[in-house]
Order: sequence, then C-alpha cells, then structure tokens
Amino acid sequence: MVAEPLTEPLADAASLDDDPIFALHRGGKMAVTLTAPLVDRDDLSMAYTPGVAQVCRAIAADPELYDSYTWATRAVAVVTDGTAVLGLGDIGPKAAMPVMEGKAVLFKRFGGVDAVPLCLGTSDPDEIVAAVKAVAPSFGGINLEDISAPRCFDIEERLTAELDIPVFHDDQHGTAIVVLAALRGASRLTSRPLESLRIVVSGAGAAGIAVARILLSAGARDIVVTDSKGILSTDRTDMNPVKAALAEDTNPNGLTGLLADALVGADVFLGLSGGIVPETDVARMASGAFIFAMANPDPEIPPTVAARYASVVATGRSDYPNQINNVLAFPGVFRGALACRACRITAGMKLAAADALANLVADDLRPDYIIPSVFDDRVAPAVAAAVARAARSEGVARS
Amino acid sequence: MVAEPLTEPLADAASLDDDPIFALHRGGKMAVTLTAPLVDRDDLSMAYTPGVAQVCRAIAADPELYDSYTWATRAVAVVTDGTAVLGLGDIGPKAAMPVMEGKAVLFKRFGGVDAVPLCLGTSDPDEIVAAVKAVAPSFGGINLEDISAPRCFDIEERLTAELDIPVFHDDQHGTAIVVLAALRGASRLTSRPLESLRIVVSGAGAAGIAVARILLSAGARDIVVTDSKGILSTDRTDMNPVKAALAEDTNPNGLTGLLADALVGADVFLGLSGGIVPETDVARMASGAFIFAMANPDPEIPPTVAARYASVVATGRSDYPNQINNVLAFPGVFRGALACRACRITAGMKLAAADALANLVADDLRPDYIIPSVFDDRVAPAVAAAVARAARSEGVARS
Repeated sequence: MVAEPLTEPLADAASLDDDPIFALHRGGKMAVTLTAPLVDRDDLSMAYTPGVAQVCRAIAADPELYDSYTWATRAVAVVTDGTAVLGLGDIGPKAAMPVMEGKAVLFKRFGGVDAVPLCLGTSDPDEIVAAVKAVAPSFGGINLEDISAPRCFDIEERLTAELDIPVFHDDQHGTAIVVLAALRGASRLTSRPLESLRIVVSGAGAAGIAVARILLSAGARDIVVTDSKGILSTDRTDMNPVKAALAEDTNPNGLTGLLADALVGADVFLGLSGGIVPETDVARMASGAFIFAMANPDPEIPPTVAARYASVVATGRSDYPNQINNVLAFPGVFRGALACRACRITAGMKLAAADALANLVADDLRPDYIIPSVFDDRVAPAVAAAVARAARSEGVARS
Repeated sequence: MVAEPLTEPLADAASLDDDPIFALHRGGKMAVTLTAPLVDRDDLSMAYTPGVAQVCRAIAADPELYDSYTWATRAVAVVTDGTAVLGLGDIGPKAAMPVMEGKAVLFKRFGGVDAVPLCLGTSDPDEIVAAVKAVAPSFGGINLEDISAPRCFDIEERLTAELDIPVFHDDQHGTAIVVLAALRGASRLTSRPLESLRIVVSGAGAAGIAVARILLSAGARDIVVTDSKGILSTDRTDMNPVKAALAEDTNPNGLTGLLADALVGADVFLGLSGGIVPETDVARMASGAFIFAMANPDPEIPPTVAARYASVVATGRSDYPNQINNVLAFPGVFRGALACRACRITAGMKLAAADALANLVADDLRPDYIIPSVFDDRVAPAVAAAVARAARSEGVARS
C-alpha cells in the first residue's frame, strides 16, 4: 500500500480541464514509485535504518558499488533555465516545467531511463554550471534542455570538461543525430552521397550549429548556414564566436547574402529556425531536393508546397510522414551511455546513434519513410547498443 | 508499454546479493513512473510538443497554475551533503544515496509525496545554499537530511529566509516532533505535566538542539542539555554559537559537570547522541523516570536495563515498543505543508504535528504504547491535517 497522492485541484483551475490537454497535465505527468516493498517492519529495517547502513558502508569502501545499489546511475537530470523553451522563448523555469516533465516521461517510456526535471531559478551560466556540478553525484547523466544560444555551448562545454558523467544538450545533439539519420535515408534512397550534396541549414542557434557540425563530421562538404542576418561567412563581423568558428568550416564557395541566395541550386534545405520560406525561393533549389522543414507547429515550407519541388520531404510534425523527432535519439543515447557507464558522449557516439537509426530503415526506404517511427520498438535498443559499442571502442566506457 | 528498466548488474557486485539487504537495494529502491498514457501519436502530441506549449503559455501568464499542472509542487527534494549520515559520519554524497533513496520511498509510502534525492558534491555551506536555491523552483519543498551540525543550522536558516517554499531539516525537526509527541504520551499516562519534569537531553547536535527547542516551545521549564564535554552552561567558553544560545535558555539551576551529574534526580532521559550510559548513572534518576534511548542500533541504555528504573521506555528500534521514528512526522508534515501551499514550516506547525501524533494514542495509553506505530494509517493524514490547519491559522498558507 502506498499513501494516496496529493491531487486536490485548485478551484480556479478547474475550468481549464475542459481542454483535454490541460486535463492530461492536471497534477503533472510523472511520479516517484517504489521498486522495493515497504509492507512491514522487516522491510522498513532493510530499506531504511538500520539495514541501509550496510549498503552505505559498502559504497563508502568501494565507490564502484554506487552503480549497483542506487538508482542514481540510471537516473538523468533534465536541466533547463527556461530561456529557450520550444518556440516560446524565455518563459522562465516554472513555465518550462511541463516540457521538462514531458521529456522525463519520454525518457522513461522510450528508453527505460529515470529522469528528473530540474528547472533552475537562474540563467547565469556560472550559477548554472555550479548548480549542475553540485547535484551531479546524484545522477548518471545530465540532459541540458531549452537553454538559449550561445550560452548553451559554453555551459555544455564547461560541464563536459568538469564532470565524469555524460552531458548532452539535446536541442543540439539530439536534433543533429536525427537530422543526420534522415539525411542518410534520403541520400541512400536517391543514391546521392552526402559528400555530393549542397546543404543549406537555416538557423544558427543550438540546433542549426550542431546539425552543421555533425554533417561535417559525417563527411558533408558543402554546407551553408544562415541566421536572421543571412549567410554565415568569414566576411561578417556581427557573429558570436560559435558562429564565427562555424563560418570558417562551412560555406566553401564564399557565398554572401540571405537565405534566398543560399537556396539557389541547393540540394538540401534543413529548416531549424522557424519563419516562412517563400515558394519562389523553394522553386530555385536544385531538382529532386530534400526539404526538411522542422519548425513546429508551422513548418518553414508547408509540406504540400515542398512536395512540388522536392523528392523527399520531412517535418517535425507527427501528422506528416518522416517526422524528425528528438525522441528517436535521446532515450537510446542515454540508455547506451548509462549501460556502459560512459564518462562522456563523444562525436563518434553521436555518429553511431545516427547510423543505427538510419540502418533500421535502410532496407525499406521510400520517399515517405526515410526515418523510423517514434513508436518503432527497435529504435531505442538499436541506438543504445550502437552508442555503447562506440563508447567502448573510443575508450570512454567504464564497463 | 514502458521500456524495460536498466538492470544489468555489475559482475563484481553479484555475490553481495546473497545478503537480502543488498539484494533489496540492487538497482536502487525507486523509479520514475508516468501518470499519463503515452501510447500513440495523439498522446505524444498532448503530453509533449505541440500540445504542451499551451500549458507552458498558461503558466507563464498565470504562475498560480504551476501548482495544478506540474508535479513540482507536490515534489520534495531530499538534500544532503553526506556529512552526517546515520551514525556513520561524513561518508560523502554517494555513500549517502541509499539513505536518501530510503527517505524518498518513505515519503511516498507514508505521505503520498514524491521525493527526489539530491546528494550534493559540495559541503561548503555557501555552495549548498546556492545549489538548493537554484533547483528550488522545481520543488514544493526542501527536506534537508544528514548535514552535520552546526553547519545545518545556518544552511536551514538561510534557505528558509530566501525561499518561499518549506525548508525542513528532518534530523532536527522530525526528531523533535516525534520526541515531543512521545513525551506528551508518557506525561499523560503518568499524570505528570511537562512543565514539572526535569529533562536531560544527551547530545547537542542537530537533533538534541531541536528537541530542546521544541520542548521549550511546548512549555518545558527544566531542561539540561549535554554534549561530549558535559552540561551546556553559560559558564562554558568552548561552545559554538548555537549551543551558547541554547545554554542561555536551558539549565535553569546552573548545573555543571557531565551527563552523570545531570542525571541525578532527573525525570526524563532523552538520548540523542549514541554512547553508553552506565547503569549506576541510570539508577540515580528520579523514580518512575521516562527513558527514551534513541541511538540506533545500540540504545544508550539497553531497554532491559532501563526497565528496572523507568516507568516508560522508548527507543529508536523497530523491535521494541514505543519506537521514536521520524517517519511518524516528515511524510505528514510535508503532505500538510504542500496541500495548503505553505511558504514555510513554523514552530506552531511543528507543535501541531506533535499534538496530532500524541492525540492519536491519547485514549489508549499504556507504558508500551505512548506513540503510534509507524504502520498506523491514521498517522500521516492526522499530522498533515494538523499542519495545514496551523499553517492557515498562522497565515503562512497560500490556499
């Protein structure tokens, strides 16, 4: 028996529950549950004092036992400061909580990973780093979420350097893994190697930067990235250091101008910024293009428009084919990293995750099936196995 | 369907599981669970993007909705730095985790409260305060646990002042509430009012200090507190500020000397320090004394010895009658504080919790039944109701 949960609604909130979305969120979407019985005095004296002291002593004597006798090393903190939540922007830590709870339940549902949302009451990078370092012993990994760019890059880099557990900013790397997998699918389907494609990445925030970086790692040679001011190029002087560094590694033909200029003759559009791309600009892409218009809920290019010009169309939405959804990546990535006790998540592990995803559909590719469904039960186990294998081969696994 | 949990054991740990205590702790004692279904695309689009954005927007517009549509305001962080764990001392945050998980499952089992263990990788008070403040928006309350004295007093005081949610150091106040309740039981049973008793508190750590303070609030007039150097008195110059302040408010007869001196003629012994009290010292207490020897696993005075001299005997152990166990207090205290959205836990709320506990047994008092059993289902609801009522009458409740 477990005591009844606290569920008394606030009277003034009741009417919102006529909306099924609010009704579903009533009282939150997650809870803690016991995995050991607590029925009688014997249970209590084993799970708590005095019995628990034996387990504490054993871990104090041999810290390796922490992994076996606590929940911590299979638990992930989902950390945000609420500064870049979905397309809503800086709505603060409390308004961000429904997303972080959602992330936590996706971790459990798809990866079997226990996740705890930590919405931080500070957006100061030093304070975020200090707080995450302080709580880190309680977790097997840190999933950073919805922290605005460019602060997110610095925060992730510092935490990765200072912690011995995986730190993964999902807005960057989860997106990058799934986009690469989908691009591999489209590339195989049409027999056009990644190396040959002219790729335009619209958006130079967390996702756009990470997508460009993983595509470079995967062998792409001609990537042009745009932000709200236009094409990232070494000529520009108005960019943050992360964009400036990316400009060095992309745009091999020294293009200048706006997104419309970048799209002329491009083979691939990767929309990671929101905003609408006029059909006249889409029409100037190369024939048989791939259009991944991932903004939610409104794709940068409506799928019906994209279909007039492209050979493969993907979106971020669940009601169209080829949904680019981070849930294809993060549950398996963490499951794999935790299972092998990886101390960090390397570029090789991310590439392995993308390849595992792409391989699941390799024999069944169609224009409307370049990426697995989020409800494909094979996904998380395949990603987890590939990530753990890569971690071991790169020497970052501890078991 | 939810993905299988991660349960692969480390090979080198398997043999420990021959011990049922280790077997019970294998993989930890808690997990996260989903309270909303995630079966199909519709579920996903309501619990996560795009549907969740509506809930985020609503909370951003009306912060009061946070309480209704997230798990946060019924969740409690169990925070430690691992410096004073059970009787084991400073074993660090990781070795403390089994206790904190145990605490979390007791919160759920007895109070229906979701609790998350946060074992901090720092014992610096400023860093602890900063980390707890940073994560505080994610929780409805903070339970401090096993933080060594006197740092624990300062940390609790600062967090209470700076946060608008309840902060409760259970080693202090949970113990104090249950000791007061048991003392009220013994006092009623023997018709000896609290005000008339000469009380000796052995131990001036977190628990001893808090017990002395709550007894003063409850009307006790003659309390003598001892630490390892002897009786706290205003003559001493070797005490920390918390002990020095307590010396001002206790020891009305200006006693000096050791515990043995304090016990001469005393009516009540409250053992909160460990160590063994010689039977010759026990024999010099007043006749019909109350002996609460709460050290675990070895009471300061063995119950069989205590029974020769005392009218009422209590211990911290589950295998003797009258178990003084914090689990009688903290689940109900937090349940009550969360239910009425209290911004802090006042002295009045603690007294109300103790009275509620004492009242449950008032009509059935026996020498071996001065306090309810931890498995008495009436306990947490009664404590919660009393705490919420006190919070409302003191004006610290928000609903």
